[in-house]
Amino acid sequence: MPRPLHSQQLLRPVPSDIAISDAIAPLLIHEIAAAAGILPEEVVPYGASKAKISLDVRDRLKDAKNGNYVVVTGITPTPLGEGKSTTTIGLCQALGAHLDRKVFACIRQPSQGPTFGVKGGAAGGGYAQVIPMDEFNLHLTGDIHAITAANNLLAAAIETRMFHESTQKDKALFNRLCPRAKDGSRTFSPVMLRRLAKLGINKTNPDDLTEEEAAKFARLDIDPETITWQRVLDTCDRFLRQVNVGVAATEKGHIRTTGFDITVASEIMAILALTTSLKDMRERLGRIVIGLDKKGEPVTADDLGVGGALAVLMKDAIMPTLMQTVEGTPVFVHAGPFANIAHGNSSIIADQIALKLAGEDGYVVTEAGFGADIGMEKFFNIKCRTSGLTPQCVVLVSTIRALKMHGGGPNVVAGQPLDPVYVDENLELLERGCANMQHHIRNALKFGVAVVVAVNVFASDTEREIELVKAKALEAGATAAVESSHWADGGKGAAKLGQAVVESCKTMRAQGSPFKFLYPLEFTIAQKFEAICKEIYGAAAVDFSEQAKKKMEIYQARGYGSLPVCCAKTHLSLSTDPTAKGVPTGFTVTVRDIRASVGAGFVYLLCGDMMTVPGLPTRPGFYDVDLDVETGKVIGLF
Amino acid sequence: MPRPLHSQQLLRPVPSDIAISDAIAPLLIHEIAAAAGILPEEVVPYGASKAKISLDVRDRLKDAKNGNYVVVTGITPTPLGEGKSTTTIGLCQALGAHLDRKVFACIRQPSQGPTFGVKGGAAGGGYAQVIPMDEFNLHLTGDIHAITAANNLLAAAIETRMFHESTQKDKALFNRLCPRAKDGSRTFSPVMLRRLAKLGINKTNPDDLTEEEAAKFARLDIDPETITWQRVLDTCDRFLRQVNVGVAATEKGHIRTTGFDITVASEIMAILALTTSLKDMRERLGRIVIGLDKKGEPVTADDLGVGGALAVLMKDAIMPTLMQTVEGTPVFVHAGPFANIAHGNSSIIADQIALKLAGEDGYVVTEAGFGADIGMEKFFNIKCRTSGLTPQCVVLVSTIRALKMHGGGPNVVAGQPLDPVYVDENLELLERGCANMQHHIRNALKFGVAVVVAVNVFASDTEREIELVKAKALEAGATAAVESSHWADGGKGAAKLGQAVVESCKTMRAQGSPFKFLYPLEFTIAQKFEAICKEIYGAAAVDFSEQAKKKMEIYQARGYGSLPVCCAKTHLSLSTDPTAKGVPTGFTVTVRDIRASVGAGFVYLLCGDMMTVPGLPTRPGFYDVDLDVETGKVIGLF
Repeated sequence: MPRPLHSQQLLRPVPSDIAISDAIAPLLIHEIAAAAGILPEEVVPYGASKAKISLDVRDRLKDAKNGNYVVVTGITPTPLGEGKSTTTIGLCQALGAHLDRKVFACIRQPSQGPTFGVKGGAAGGGYAQVIPMDEFNLHLTGDIHAITAANNLLAAAIETRMFHESTQKDKALFNRLCPRAKDGSRTFSPVMLRRLAKLGINKTNPDDLTEEEAAKFARLDIDPETITWQRVLDTCDRFLRQVNVGVAATEKGHIRTTGFDITVASEIMAILALTTSLKDMRERLGRIVIGLDKKGEPVTADDLGVGGALAVLMKDAIMPTLMQTVEGTPVFVHAGPFANIAHGNSSIIADQIALKLAGEDGYVVTEAGFGADIGMEKFFNIKCRTSGLTPQCVVLVSTIRALKMHGGGPNVVAGQPLDPVYVDENLELLERGCANMQHHIRNALKFGVAVVVAVNVFASDTEREIELVKAKALEAGATAAVESSHWADGGKGAAKLGQAVVESCKTMRAQGSPFKFLYPLEFTIAQKFEAICKEIYGAAAVDFSEQAKKKMEIYQARGYGSLPVCCAKTHLSLSTDPTAKGVPTGFTVTVRDIRASVGAGFVYLLCGDMMTVPGLPTRPGFYDVDLDVETGKVIGLF
Repeated sequence: MPRPLHSQQLLRPVPSDIAISDAIAPLLIHEIAAAAGILPEEVVPYGASKAKISLDVRDRLKDAKNGNYVVVTGITPTPLGEGKSTTTIGLCQALGAHLDRKVFACIRQPSQGPTFGVKGGAAGGGYAQVIPMDEFNLHLTGDIHAITAANNLLAAAIETRMFHESTQKDKALFNRLCPRAKDGSRTFSPVMLRRLAKLGINKTNPDDLTEEEAAKFARLDIDPETITWQRVLDTCDRFLRQVNVGVAATEKGHIRTTGFDITVASEIMAILALTTSLKDMRERLGRIVIGLDKKGEPVTADDLGVGGALAVLMKDAIMPTLMQTVEGTPVFVHAGPFANIAHGNSSIIADQIALKLAGEDGYVVTEAGFGADIGMEKFFNIKCRTSGLTPQCVVLVSTIRALKMHGGGPNVVAGQPLDPVYVDENLELLERGCANMQHHIRNALKFGVAVVVAVNVFASDTEREIELVKAKALEAGATAAVESSHWADGGKGAAKLGQAVVESCKTMRAQGSPFKFLYPLEFTIAQKFEAICKEIYGAAAVDFSEQAKKKMEIYQARGYGSLPVCCAKTHLSLSTDPTAKGVPTGFTVTVRDIRASVGAGFVYLLCGDMMTVPGLPTRPGFYDVDLDVETGKVIGLF
């Protein structure tokens, strides 16, 4: 099915992403699916060029051997990004259309918010992208919208319950929750039985409860000060960062200060990314902790009676979406959790399906968000731990631009012209900057995987610069280091990279894939955090605010100590200071606060302020976006 | 393609809606489409049982004659509803599977919010429903989510623009809006040219603008007090009715009190329902007025530069969704605007496509929201006026329960047991209550259409009661009056109703379909309003608040006077007092406020308080909803 781009299709200068996407007619998604070994009844089409894929594939192929599992990550990036998505797509195009391997790319669905703000598209770029890129960047198959709906139903359930509890006595509340049918009987709904079990009340007939039990069951007694559940919208609306709700007279003065996050920051997004089945997802959604009651006990979505409804809203979203690259390579797009307050990796389910479809000789290439200190560490310690899947190879994307910055080059700022050091040869800056790359290589090696460095080349890079980076990569222990020009040349430009990945995977398989985690789950939260900070970031010490210390104690007592940890820190430095480039040393990482995503299954530690709603600039990208009303085509989207 | 339900499928007692929907295997949507005359390339599948249908169908069949056009409406309802949707679906099942006519039902997409609150499903019910009903009531094909996204992008654009204008001088603002490219040149984007044209600035090079012109262009100077654009969510979240936004420190004290509506109340939903093409939709979206500038001039979405992006977000939503009834009748589901602050009717585009597909001998049955005084009046005066389509027949749904209430029966309250008068024979109450039905029949006749009364029968209705209603209907000028038992019996139960509709349409066609509007567009806003109140509601007089009077003057001056008017009043009475049942007389209708939906193309007059975010009850419907995690089936949804 993969079909190489012909040289006459590779225009110079490289056109805009939307122009390239528009000019290449996608294959029918049914054809892509069939070529990938997916049965027609496992395909749920959404138009002609995207489809959801049933989890039945995984069950049908449960006895097949998994393919080779490759994760694409990067050095500490500039604010412009160093091309991880583009490399992921280009590498898969190379493996499929040029090296004749069965291959799947597994990538994240981007938030729609930034599409109209400042960010470029997330479908890769140039001749290494997913098509149709407008569908990829917009509604896709509705998963993010489903998360918005589920997240906000839970939020509405919280406020409404507090409101109703404030105006009703215990008995009235219980009678409203368990009303009598026409024949006078009454029953608990299944979700209520979950709450009863949690409370240790072993009764199934509402009429059997004592007054005290009925009150305990009916009154959640949520402490408004402890609510961590926010509303979400997939829009860059900075004015929603903090809001007062309940201002209308009908809410009788129950005003509360809360906020919105962008939808991809919802815990439900992290759940979608980490879940392994419908049953597992239902349980995780029900376990979500929205805050505490006035006794300090966690209140869950199932306590509110809404876990089942959340699962219903998410039942289609659990299926990954199949699309294709410009060279017809199959691509699974599924989930896109934040890379700081969440783990920043696409879904386990998509990887599982793809690994079965790829089979022993095939390849699944997935991408981890931010730099390797963040996305890759979480890929290994959170995602692979939850899935039980074993990766063989890390592709570390490096650019000469970013390495020069780490060597002491001036600030790189989005929307401003680059300093000449970034376009002229400068071996001195570059050599110094390679230390950052080497640090990430040595980190990756700690997990027992092969490391292939991909030098994502720009037109201004010189041969001597490229050779220097490659030498430095090998020096630090990389299995291979290869330049790649997929953005301009498509899969052909990544063929050498593909070959290096094939050989590295073969070597690791021969060694029995000696993958290992950085820390055992038995470590305390503090121990896990320290392992990450010292081993991965290169910190000298860790520190905790009083609040964080207190919460850690509570979390350990509640059993959350056995969860993996997720560090929320800047991606612009190995340290927590975004201006500290290269390989900072001697620094301390301080945890300001700590929270638990109990449904998703990790504890996250806030090291700095995390922005969960981006703003729009004075001239947002939407100024250029329009519809060709004759053809229905999108204009001006990147 | 329509296939009658076999008697062995008609279970007694009639199972729950979800149980019926689950038990009947839908036909493949491709088969439904093919049988309806839709070409494979005009079908955009969303899974196996729903598909969007391309507007190309309408262009391909532009020379075909339209089918017969039937609108289903109702008498003034009880809060339980009188079964308009069920009758619409049942009638179509009868026409298709039992009377062998080519037929399409065109209905509204329901809001997802109330699905988890108190309301029943909107897919019809019993053996007259659209399947799969869970997909119908949940995400469907994402149109409402697209509206949420578009509505809130516009809201974010408003706040952000005000924020940026507050911190930037004219020149800086202009330079940010029109930045220079690397070569020093700069251009206006197409949407900016629209604003320039509006301002009467006939220049296309940013460098040619005088300082004054540049300032005029760049500074929208929105008066925050005049902003009418709200954010939306498709969730019953009463705490969002009024909110303060911008509370976070990053927004530097620019706090503003505003609110959320439920998504179906968005003007963009009304636009989707009334638009006739992509081009038309793009223009309407750009014309949306979000508020006024400090000189009192309207500020539009295109002034904010976002009209094109809104059209891009809505480009798939413009295609109606094809589904099917339990008897395989094709159903178009498209748009679901509020029936008070908007016009409460499904989309023009779906009706247009269906009428072409039905052809001269076929039937298109659509449904108008609320009672005939509201939904039907708006169907004729707003929807048919905008579309140019000519209806032949009104089906007026009546229930003996509601008529008894109008005759003086006690209050009917959702969730509370019915008073015995509603289940025992009571001809006296019923006869008195028939006046309400007769009033609606006479109203419909004013538009030059035939009226068929459908008595939606319940098990407790007696033969004498049914005969009384039928006699009263004929007395008032109905062409026919027929009982219908589609809820329990499917299409077979509506066969007599179908026959009556066929004959009525034939008669009207023979008369040349003498359809006419209630008022000409040349009337002033006040004259239009008076015509509706006196002719339709039966009011003695109309009155306007000072604010409404002032706004009317402004709207007339701005040219909005030529738009049709949309009255927002209670549906529970012909008057504005929801407790006034039967046929109230001598009352005055007072307009509290008046607003313009310039994009949708109507002016709406608020006669009473309209609730645009329903709340959740103490025990929301979501308590019963869950997923069967083994089969993936939805449990407990109605």
